[in-house]
Amino acid sequence: MTQCSIRLFQMDAVVGDFSGNLQKLARAAEKAQADGIVILIAPELAVTGYPPEDLLLRPALIEKLEVAETKLCEISEGLTLCVGLPTVASEMLRDCDRGSLSNKPASLHNSLVVYQCGQRLTAYHKNSLPNYQVFDERRYFVAGTEPMVCEIGGIRIGFLVCEDVWVAEIVEATCALGVDCIIVLNASPFAEHKISERYWHLRDRATNNRIPIAYVNLVGGQDELIFDGGSFAVNRQGEIIAQANFFVEEMLDIIWDGEDLTESRIAAFPSKDWMLYEALVTGIRDYFAKTGFKKAVLGLSGGIDSALTLVCAVDALGAENVNAVMMPYLYTADISVADARRQAEILGCEFSMVSIEPMVREFMETLGPFFEGHPIDATEENIQSRCRGVLLMALSNKTGALVLTTGNKSEMAVGYATLYGDMAGGFAVLKDVWKTRVYDLARFINRGSETIPERVISRPPSAELAPEQEDSDNLPPYDRLDQILSLYIESDQSPQAIIDSGFDSKEVKQICRLVDINEYKRRQSAVGPRVTARGFGRDRRYPIASRWSF
Amino acid sequence: MTQCSIRLFQMDAVVGDFSGNLQKLARAAEKAQADGIVILIAPELAVTGYPPEDLLLRPALIEKLEVAETKLCEISEGLTLCVGLPTVASEMLRDCDRGSLSNKPASLHNSLVVYQCGQRLTAYHKNSLPNYQVFDERRYFVAGTEPMVCEIGGIRIGFLVCEDVWVAEIVEATCALGVDCIIVLNASPFAEHKISERYWHLRDRATNNRIPIAYVNLVGGQDELIFDGGSFAVNRQGEIIAQANFFVEEMLDIIWDGEDLTESRIAAFPSKDWMLYEALVTGIRDYFAKTGFKKAVLGLSGGIDSALTLVCAVDALGAENVNAVMMPYLYTADISVADARRQAEILGCEFSMVSIEPMVREFMETLGPFFEGHPIDATEENIQSRCRGVLLMALSNKTGALVLTTGNKSEMAVGYATLYGDMAGGFAVLKDVWKTRVYDLARFINRGSETIPERVISRPPSAELAPEQEDSDNLPPYDRLDQILSLYIESDQSPQAIIDSGFDSKEVKQICRLVDINEYKRRQSAVGPRVTARGFGRDRRYPIASRWSF
Repeated sequence: MTQCSIRLFQMDAVVGDFSGNLQKLARAAEKAQADGIVILIAPELAVTGYPPEDLLLRPALIEKLEVAETKLCEISEGLTLCVGLPTVASEMLRDCDRGSLSNKPASLHNSLVVYQCGQRLTAYHKNSLPNYQVFDERRYFVAGTEPMVCEIGGIRIGFLVCEDVWVAEIVEATCALGVDCIIVLNASPFAEHKISERYWHLRDRATNNRIPIAYVNLVGGQDELIFDGGSFAVNRQGEIIAQANFFVEEMLDIIWDGEDLTESRIAAFPSKDWMLYEALVTGIRDYFAKTGFKKAVLGLSGGIDSALTLVCAVDALGAENVNAVMMPYLYTADISVADARRQAEILGCEFSMVSIEPMVREFMETLGPFFEGHPIDATEENIQSRCRGVLLMALSNKTGALVLTTGNKSEMAVGYATLYGDMAGGFAVLKDVWKTRVYDLARFINRGSETIPERVISRPPSAELAPEQEDSDNLPPYDRLDQILSLYIESDQSPQAIIDSGFDSKEVKQICRLVDINEYKRRQSAVGPRVTARGFGRDRRYPIASRWSF
Repeated sequence: MTQCSIRLFQMDAVVGDFSGNLQKLARAAEKAQADGIVILIAPELAVTGYPPEDLLLRPALIEKLEVAETKLCEISEGLTLCVGLPTVASEMLRDCDRGSLSNKPASLHNSLVVYQCGQRLTAYHKNSLPNYQVFDERRYFVAGTEPMVCEIGGIRIGFLVCEDVWVAEIVEATCALGVDCIIVLNASPFAEHKISERYWHLRDRATNNRIPIAYVNLVGGQDELIFDGGSFAVNRQGEIIAQANFFVEEMLDIIWDGEDLTESRIAAFPSKDWMLYEALVTGIRDYFAKTGFKKAVLGLSGGIDSALTLVCAVDALGAENVNAVMMPYLYTADISVADARRQAEILGCEFSMVSIEPMVREFMETLGPFFEGHPIDATEENIQSRCRGVLLMALSNKTGALVLTTGNKSEMAVGYATLYGDMAGGFAVLKDVWKTRVYDLARFINRGSETIPERVISRPPSAELAPEQEDSDNLPPYDRLDQILSLYIESDQSPQAIIDSGFDSKEVKQICRLVDINEYKRRQSAVGPRVTARGFGRDRRYPIASRWSF
């Protein structure tokens, strides 16, 4: 019976940061060797970060990859290292025939390379390249066609990369090579419900093939993608025998006892709300860290969206790095000001008050002659919102703080937001969080003590851009709105199908139409963390000019 | 000897507009029949428009396609109709296994269907699916694997769809079936130099295989893509025997004389500047037409970018539909105001003057306490630009006119533009036009008479956001800047490669760094017509958070 210790390195790789990522791998290898680990496993594309996008098209990439492979050989002195990186599939093709630099794909593999004692032992090329949802892997990679087994420390290990393990045929082809266990390198982004999907799926693959599987995932935020980590392993019976924590970079050691993977550390499984909240905090923290920002500024309105955004920001960056700005106008309720101030006090962050009244007045006066004969409409509301946007951006430009926007997914869906107004900013924290989930998270945050003033949660939501305004003047109640939006956006249902499932015809059509005609707004929105199965970023690619009719 | 008349319908299809596109096809078929045409050919995906993007993922698509096919059968009474549309490759797969609505591809073909006398005769499925540059076809389609020949009116016609004809092996496989001629359905977007590429390429395919080829292209603007039309045909010797006009919807009739395609109408070949100018005008015209806007408003600064944008807008929409707004401030030169006013007079469009002075003053006063101790920097300039943005957006909101932004590609590349300021608007006309090409076009426009005041072209460019400011204070001269940017962005060269070709090291590194760090601005920019081999839209997908180092 061969015993063998395997370490899964749940790594936070930075896109494009070859030297930083390699240093991190080197430190992990050194530590692993000291700890008597035989095999160290790092995630998919750990060397480049995920997704490197069009950085993969740069000719200079080839040289960087050569340097990286040399370094990875060095790192592997004294143990076996399995790590994900692109490898060159064939001559980098410039399609000279067309005269243009089309840089067609089919030049790189998305590979897993095994290094051992200073040598490059072998490589596996991802067979199944996802090209749906947020994934564009066929833009860059050519698929491998063969399964691979590699004997390390007396264990026959079958290697897969991410999407491969979701394809039953690929897993079976690997098992057919006669393997003791399977190791999968992943860059699997977070979405609510995704974690349990991974479990059920891996359990099925394990039990169907009577094979233990270890799953190592990337961790950390990269633009709109949030990798949750949560690396784990199942034994031949499909039972979880190892579970890493979520949203932290860490090591998870697993033991091959000669027969199966055996029980090791199993981290507690967190709640759904905790997961979502941590995904948002991770999104902020890493977007700032990876773009080089330290401080955030945001408009704190006394409403629930900005209240939640502020809590996330303070958690991610520290209260000393967050500036909450209340920008009242005629329609701002006194309780809004009081609640905003109170929340900033509770959290201990900087709080400023800047009335937008003088600027709005000047705009209205200047525009008076142009507006003559036109009735009051959303224009006047947008001017208020845009004055706030200009103020926040000025504070950002002057102090180097990044503006966080505070709108939620429900608003982004129906266009209940002002372009260049409340949409102005660098990171849209709640962009993929339905309003109903915003309420869930606010209550989750307040579960121990009142971090968000209770009145912020209990009062009827309002943009406060007109006298006595409430969101319900223009929109159905959020629980109904979110159901309809989710069916339309996340489930691709037609308005008729939604109506058939029991919603009001006129309301459904109106809402779906709002989603369609507001594509132009979303196209200019800030990037924000994707936390559902369909976010508004790379995930959902709709034309602006479109005459699709229901 | 069988004679046969074939009509290429260079069609402007609207994305998602099934009924509109089908009506257009019906009218074309009726006319063709009256004219004694045997075969009518419409472009790639003429039924859905191109690119339909994620509309292709909607389950309701299947029913729409069924209705369309029935209608296309009806349309084909009395002739043969070949048209591009998606067809269902297999059961629309919902990957239930994953529990999520991943709507993986591999469910549709990008097809060419032949209808004859009320029957669906046969279908060809595009073999080569582009998944590079602006194309995402593998997100939606599964590739066909077989070539296809179809005998119509005694001619054995080999059919291909767009990318197929660029792949020598696919053309050869089609010829191996024994074909008299090849017809290619295209949705090939415009880029400078693309037209000659198409010619040289088709000539090679024709002469290498001794086969005549007819090429029918889509025409019209669709968001960032501009289809130029320019359908044409070459005979066995690779000589052009038919050439349609560019940027207009029209019919091009070609004759099969029993041996070869014979000479028919050959439209004059336009100049490079004319093509670029028409591409921009088409982009504006169709973006407005297809999104339902009639009127445009833009900031006219007295500079060359807004001057060119105004000319394009007036050409596309009519002078009566364009409102040019001069928004002076302390740093606006008198000649800027005079030249702006003069150009508006020449073009006969509405001209308004709105000083931003009162709003800027209020912002500066309000922000004074926050700015204390900080030196003057770009913040103050951005406030001016953003006040202009708020004014234009207010006019837009109140009057229903769409704001055109006026920044050029050189500025977008290095971030010499204000987010939510001069970048605020719905359509960015010059987004993919280098500043040096802006000058070319201005001179092209003025070739007959002075449409743009000559002083606008001859004076040194300035953003006029600070006293005595000139673009050259911050940037190298545009001819050098554009060369460096083009090498970096369009040719993917590394800074070192650019330096090695003779540019100053410090300058190159500074410029490339500016390109990289301004990704966040471009991500929030308005859509604009792509006219080069690499635009800043779907064409170039870069991470915002990235540590790629030179």
